[in-house]
Amino acid sequence: MKKRDIGANTFVYPMPVTLLGTLVSGKANFMALGWLSRVNANPPMIGVAVGRHHLTCAGIAETGTFSINVPGEEMMEVTDYCGMVSGEKEDKSGIFEIFYGRLKTAPMIEECSLCMECRLAKTMEFPANTLFIGEIVASYSEEKYLSDNRPDITKMHPLLLTMPDNRYWKVGECAGKAWGEGRGFRKG
Amino acid sequence: MKKRDIGANTFVYPMPVTLLGTLVSGKANFMALGWLSRVNANPPMIGVAVGRHHLTCAGIAETGTFSINVPGEEMMEVTDYCGMVSGEKEDKSGIFEIFYGRLKTAPMIEECSLCMECRLAKTMEFPANTLFIGEIVASYSEEKYLSDNRPDITKMHPLLLTMPDNRYWKVGECAGKAWGEGRGFRKG
Repeated sequence: MKKRDIGANTFVYPMPVTLLGTLVSGKANFMALGWLSRVNANPPMIGVAVGRHHLTCAGIAETGTFSINVPGEEMMEVTDYCGMVSGEKEDKSGIFEIFYGRLKTAPMIEECSLCMECRLAKTMEFPANTLFIGEIVASYSEEKYLSDNRPDITKMHPLLLTMPDNRYWKVGECAGKAWGEGRGFRKG
Repeated sequence: MKKRDIGANTFVYPMPVTLLGTLVSGKANFMALGWLSRVNANPPMIGVAVGRHHLTCAGIAETGTFSINVPGEEMMEVTDYCGMVSGEKEDKSGIFEIFYGRLKTAPMIEECSLCMECRLAKTMEFPANTLFIGEIVASYSEEKYLSDNRPDITKMHPLLLTMPDNRYWKVGECAGKAWGEGRGFRKG
């Protein structure tokens, strides 16, 4: 083996860049979030891991709802700002055009290409983070980000994140077809 | 609002592409996995959401360990193959050069740029998927994938996945500094 142990604190390569929306004491708040994943196929559920000190945790506990919003490359500065400044210190309710969906309490961002509206289904506590599991009840987008009625990454231009070097990345070219390329594989 | 409801079954944009390694009845098995995220900062923990029908679930239950391996672009075909063919039908134990770390039962892939060795900490059942939470006990890489002793995405060349269009993507250019770009933001 050529590999060596580089320590336990490694990350997923790369992580998505999203904005997590909540309503805290009636005011919309947003934090940058890269620790999230779909966790169930049907019904569609998503898990978001939030550091326990974030104001966002209070918002999710308060309303039992939250949103996941996908910012484009052109929103890098404001997205990073949302990740640097706590809602306890600065009011972030006025920096985006906000809309609400059927749950009424999950603020979503009009400027984002895709907004997922989630109802809290379960909460799991870890030493430093809380994992909130939400059922996606609806998603919102618009024609300019869609192809064949589905979100199209070449129109969304989402950002990626790497840690611990803390850099944002663009999405590159299409490499192939999932559940397709493997047909050509023959075991040696 | 210009946006419209496009349905609940939307995904994270984009998802990472990894290979989840387990030992099933003494034989190494690997599946392609895009539904995963870090879930805790310290100790480092990772959550992986696996469809309950996968053989992988039996492997994790059997040993209480698993691995997450990051394939490069050049491994797209074999990675996709691992996602298309169940270990119940085909023996995947011979398609990679395998090594084991301190847990002894989490097979890892020498050809991958980064391998995380995980000890199962918690299991959470959802209707279609099981969410396995693992503590990362060690990670393995080699000099050619590192810069400043950290994994470097420009040397790893990991793949990204989008669903439901089921396509793989390359990582594009660096866009900026996380916890940095936001300093320039001034609220209008």
